[in-house]
Amino acid sequence: MQEIDFTWPKGFQTGTAHAGFKEDQQLDMAWIVSDVPAVAAGVYTKNQFQAAPVQFTKNLINQNHKLQAIVINSGNANSFTGQEGLDHADETHQLAANKLAIDPNLVAVASTGVIGKQLEMDKIQSGLEQLSLAPESDIAHAILTTDSCEKKTTVSVMIAGQPVTITGIAKGSGMIHPNMGTTLGFVTTDANITGETLQGLLSDLIQSSFNQITVDGCMSTNDMVLVLANGQAENALIDQSTTQANDLADFKAGLKAVLVALAKMVAQDGEGSNKFVQATVVNAASVVEANQVARAIVGSNLIKAMLFGEENNWGRIVQAIGQTQAQISPNHLDIFLADVPLVKDSQKVLADQDQVAAILAQDEIDLTIDLHVGEATGQAWGCDLTYKYVEINAAYEG
Amino acid sequence: MQEIDFTWPKGFQTGTAHAGFKEDQQLDMAWIVSDVPAVAAGVYTKNQFQAAPVQFTKNLINQNHKLQAIVINSGNANSFTGQEGLDHADETHQLAANKLAIDPNLVAVASTGVIGKQLEMDKIQSGLEQLSLAPESDIAHAILTTDSCEKKTTVSVMIAGQPVTITGIAKGSGMIHPNMGTTLGFVTTDANITGETLQGLLSDLIQSSFNQITVDGCMSTNDMVLVLANGQAENALIDQSTTQANDLADFKAGLKAVLVALAKMVAQDGEGSNKFVQATVVNAASVVEANQVARAIVGSNLIKAMLFGEENNWGRIVQAIGQTQAQISPNHLDIFLADVPLVKDSQKVLADQDQVAAILAQDEIDLTIDLHVGEATGQAWGCDLTYKYVEINAAYEG
Repeated sequence: MQEIDFTWPKGFQTGTAHAGFKEDQQLDMAWIVSDVPAVAAGVYTKNQFQAAPVQFTKNLINQNHKLQAIVINSGNANSFTGQEGLDHADETHQLAANKLAIDPNLVAVASTGVIGKQLEMDKIQSGLEQLSLAPESDIAHAILTTDSCEKKTTVSVMIAGQPVTITGIAKGSGMIHPNMGTTLGFVTTDANITGETLQGLLSDLIQSSFNQITVDGCMSTNDMVLVLANGQAENALIDQSTTQANDLADFKAGLKAVLVALAKMVAQDGEGSNKFVQATVVNAASVVEANQVARAIVGSNLIKAMLFGEENNWGRIVQAIGQTQAQISPNHLDIFLADVPLVKDSQKVLADQDQVAAILAQDEIDLTIDLHVGEATGQAWGCDLTYKYVEINAAYEG
Repeated sequence: MQEIDFTWPKGFQTGTAHAGFKEDQQLDMAWIVSDVPAVAAGVYTKNQFQAAPVQFTKNLINQNHKLQAIVINSGNANSFTGQEGLDHADETHQLAANKLAIDPNLVAVASTGVIGKQLEMDKIQSGLEQLSLAPESDIAHAILTTDSCEKKTTVSVMIAGQPVTITGIAKGSGMIHPNMGTTLGFVTTDANITGETLQGLLSDLIQSSFNQITVDGCMSTNDMVLVLANGQAENALIDQSTTQANDLADFKAGLKAVLVALAKMVAQDGEGSNKFVQATVVNAASVVEANQVARAIVGSNLIKAMLFGEENNWGRIVQAIGQTQAQISPNHLDIFLADVPLVKDSQKVLADQDQVAAILAQDEIDLTIDLHVGEATGQAWGCDLTYKYVEINAAYEG
């Protein structure tokens, strides 16, 4: 498995448009289209007020795990819009299917933006009129909202001697938190794989990728991650029940690399953030508990503010760990900043203050926690809490 | 039951000192002493790394629910200090008991301040030498850390024709969140009541008072609320199994008034806050769910930042409600800002924008959520998220 220059897998094309949801001719609509029907899998926000496009696309994929196109708009979330919102999602997928001359049941929809506003269908129509298909486009840009940069990545894996490409794009900057969702993510691959296997891998891997990032503790109504696999790489079919274990493992590693890379990019672009934070928890009682403790650390406002201030206030890390229900050994906790021990066996270590200050001044902060109660490991990613975060979210209208 | 001017109940005296934990001769040590042994009850932080004084005092009270004195220091939390920390708590209570010439088993300890630093016993000794007893003192000031103001209140209730006084003081400004704790709170009363009854009332009432405030989602290692009742009012004994229902209800109402008033003062003094926020949830399926939804609203960074910015971004309120597991009726949600409806039956209401702006400009914001699924009510209290919060917590050392 290796990361390669960004490219779309075989048989995928994309297009972008300015539909009018955003001002100043900014791109705000896009689609991803496979030449042939693809196997599809999805994971969705657990917010009880799931937005219309989430409900709609979830139902669609659950029918037979097949998609050929995804239509995406940014600037209006079509969330908290009742039956009218569901009708708008339905109408959007019908219109896109007509234009592509494909079965509407193969067209998913996704939206991101302001909550509580009906989707303006005249803008959707205008956008669809403009959308065309090209091997390359600036779709990673078109799906952004308050994001400051594009999030995209490509890896290549060999499956039974055949090269397979996996490419993902994502958006997300605020309202980012487990469970799940946390963003829009679209992954495409030319792998030949069964729908059940793909859904199984995605549901598993999302736990250690998108579910492990947090910017502000808020779980959006619109989040989803979709994966389309169109089989154009013509590799031997990947099926969890029949495929050789290492072929399945190779594909899984590639998909994980894409999901984790996108998740980290989202955390790195957390609203108003100066610093990216990675928390690694080792020797936990279980992976679930390792992930829980890691999330508690990157999710703590006090730790986030401390990192913005570049202070070594490790008591706040102790506080955040203790707030979880994860198994701990009260007298055997270790905390490391990069490779410098701050706490060993629950005792403060007299660290070199200049060295600590130099590490805290960096843009990327690594914290490692050794719980000494088991053998499981987990990671989570986040960012610092800055004046800018408050400014963005105090001023954001609608 | 009525609120009266701040005063200590019959038979309680207090004292303060500058022990040296804080600089510039600031008060940083205090005690509360009853003339006679009092019935005692306590609730404690659920953080797994309970600080030494919390472990110590909890064990002490659980022995026989009796106390005569509480010794408090601010500036050093004696938290994450291992066996040495427990020894220091023990030594503090022995020294205080010697000075008061009372049974050490009647002396509780409480600490607040920096985590991970051994308690300097020379400062404790110096503080104890200075401590004296007076009917009045500035103890509500001495227990503060980053707080900007004192938190104290007194109510008077009639129990079987006898006036009973209930007085509480509290500290807390950051690291404030359910569950429990959230602060130090000390309540004294001259009521004549059994220990079991007092503990039962406190454990119940804490759920709808201190457990319903949040400043920053962080649960401290040191929080506790203690209640001492010394019987000096000479009312007929209050016992949950034998007392007339309305006498018990009257005392409970008085204790609740004190706990809720202190909790709201803590939320109001949230670090760096400009605005106080009260969320009221009505027609929930249960009190637990009503409280859960109310806490989700006052705990959301996005809502807190929106209130700082005085924006009407009600989609964030929908998002926060949906993030809970409380029962909802997706098409029947109402949201009110003061008495102005923003959402009715899950539809946006076209509110008068000038009126909304005028309400958002006030110092105290009332949000009411009608879930339309049951009959239970709950409230929670918090504050806005400001530049100042980030500044305080980026700069706080140690």
